[in-house]
Amino acid sequence: MSLERLQRLRALMTQRGVDAVAVVPSANLFYLTGLQMHLSERVTLALFTRDAAHLIVPALEVPRVETRTRVPLTLHGWSDAEWVQAGWASLKKALSLDGCSIAADYYSVRALELTQLQNFARDAQISDASELLGALRMTKDAAEMDAMRRAVRVLETSMDALLHEVRVGKTERELAARWQWLMFEHGADGIPEAPIVASGPNSAQPHTTSTARALAEGDLLILDGWCTVDGYFGDITRTFAIGAVSDELKHIYDLTLRANQAGRAAAKPGAQGQDVDRAARKIISDAGYGEFFMHRTGHGLGLEIHEAPNIVEGNTLTLTPGMTFTVEPGIYLPGKGGVRIEDDVVVTQDGAECLMTYPRELRVI
Amino acid sequence: MSLERLQRLRALMTQRGVDAVAVVPSANLFYLTGLQMHLSERVTLALFTRDAAHLIVPALEVPRVETRTRVPLTLHGWSDAEWVQAGWASLKKALSLDGCSIAADYYSVRALELTQLQNFARDAQISDASELLGALRMTKDAAEMDAMRRAVRVLETSMDALLHEVRVGKTERELAARWQWLMFEHGADGIPEAPIVASGPNSAQPHTTSTARALAEGDLLILDGWCTVDGYFGDITRTFAIGAVSDELKHIYDLTLRANQAGRAAAKPGAQGQDVDRAARKIISDAGYGEFFMHRTGHGLGLEIHEAPNIVEGNTLTLTPGMTFTVEPGIYLPGKGGVRIEDDVVVTQDGAECLMTYPRELRVI
Repeated sequence: MSLERLQRLRALMTQRGVDAVAVVPSANLFYLTGLQMHLSERVTLALFTRDAAHLIVPALEVPRVETRTRVPLTLHGWSDAEWVQAGWASLKKALSLDGCSIAADYYSVRALELTQLQNFARDAQISDASELLGALRMTKDAAEMDAMRRAVRVLETSMDALLHEVRVGKTERELAARWQWLMFEHGADGIPEAPIVASGPNSAQPHTTSTARALAEGDLLILDGWCTVDGYFGDITRTFAIGAVSDELKHIYDLTLRANQAGRAAAKPGAQGQDVDRAARKIISDAGYGEFFMHRTGHGLGLEIHEAPNIVEGNTLTLTPGMTFTVEPGIYLPGKGGVRIEDDVVVTQDGAECLMTYPRELRVI
Repeated sequence: MSLERLQRLRALMTQRGVDAVAVVPSANLFYLTGLQMHLSERVTLALFTRDAAHLIVPALEVPRVETRTRVPLTLHGWSDAEWVQAGWASLKKALSLDGCSIAADYYSVRALELTQLQNFARDAQISDASELLGALRMTKDAAEMDAMRRAVRVLETSMDALLHEVRVGKTERELAARWQWLMFEHGADGIPEAPIVASGPNSAQPHTTSTARALAEGDLLILDGWCTVDGYFGDITRTFAIGAVSDELKHIYDLTLRANQAGRAAAKPGAQGQDVDRAARKIISDAGYGEFFMHRTGHGLGLEIHEAPNIVEGNTLTLTPGMTFTVEPGIYLPGKGGVRIEDDVVVTQDGAECLMTYPRELRVI
């Protein structure tokens, strides 16, 4: 499968006049080679040219790379005693990129590797490969969709299990830790960051982390979690009421729910990324709450929790079948509380399919 | 406490003629500001000058940043609709770095932020701040040591609990998942990557990931785990025998144990990083196994799992009290099995204290 991906990469490179693409350990390296590695002080860097693929790699990773790569790679190993200069020297014997056009993954290649690459390839034009790599990964195949569906199931079943333990007096932090365990128990293979459990006034901060605050009667409770299965992400948010909540909070819940529905309904082939954002935002703005929905409506989802396509004003990218992203409008009233309802969708031939089955009606706990 | 850290940063900047230090979400940002943030496609970048501290930050992070920063920061927020250009434009009104000397954290600043910084600061000299930042963080204070000690306790008690469940037929992967749970249960607050459980021939690959292989009689079993408590790492490796193992494997176990002891004994004020490596390596090389110990003896440990000081040939940095690092020699016989014994130490006034209490004698399970 990765060979087919390399072929598509090379077709895009030819189209755009790119001689080489530079990638470090990241979702992109995994997508192209099957190698799941981590950025560290030991530099690992792949260079894909039109007819070859090279990997500068710490010697102690070589056995693992040889076993696990899904594509032929010419390895340039370097030991701890030599350090990375030895890898570049080995590459120099096999490849020159002087004066070439190189696209580097600007979202993961660090200044560390970029300056080494600039030293290696004299007079090269170095540009950002992230749009090209994003385009490559945007349309999911059946196996990728299967992994995403399983990740969503893990989130839904673990959230449901967590709800049995939610009660007044429990802290956000203990619920977040508990949910993380439950995700693993239900089959997650990775949780790069703890879920968000935000209650009462804290729920009015869209990007909070869970605190020692204890749940209280009248709170809104936001549960926002993510996990991977076979490397692919699911991402869910639901908002609950702890006992009786105010009419104002019920009102913003209803608005957010309608915005979520409108956003999902706008997701279809031919629409642009910004159309989904506009559809969701219109519901909230028309009701006078526009200033309290201060983030984009969604983000692409796949090997990364945030990837292309961006569901934001200004993104004119046309949606096509197989693209996957979140639809997650929210309304946040400072000091009072917030609501966010997040689903993952995949664009189909004639609309979009929602990967979630979890109910969206306001549930009182 | 972070104000004192900023003062030390500025003293180093003055010493080295640096006008500004650029940092993105990382251990360095956390160390200097108390902000625990994550690299994402939404650019966040701090610039510390001799007399000010600026933060370009996504608008939706602003409330959290205002609540949690431990130092005064001038915030330049930007919304999803404007994107990061708005943050740079706001910074431009407050600060010019044209022609200045800027040090950027090359190990976490990405090509993405570096090119934006180059556009912002015309004719600036941009260099690598990582050595400066490493120096800043290398000596731990009492609170930092307390967190590291607690992280080590979590590793030791969870490893001990795991051993009750280790038996022939269990797979590496299920033991790794189980250990991860046990770490959380014993008080870990973060595990950035699953532990390594490597058995039989797999134990001969120092950087393997856990596989579906089931433990068998005669295996060596390497358990290598890490976790954070209050953001600080512990890192432990022990090797066990599953039933009776060959005399050759027992022999390399004894050698590795002696190398570990020799490395720890060489850790003291006045010694260099490479002296610890040499002391451990000599035991193994003298016995004829030098080629099978193909990694450095250790790495600094603290807010990052790998940080300064590097315990490797060529590192002439002089050790001083408060520096923390691992001592983890290993011998890996391809196809047969490997041994690694890893302790965390802190340099004291007259030697080094080992943070581990876990026994090192070969335990047969």
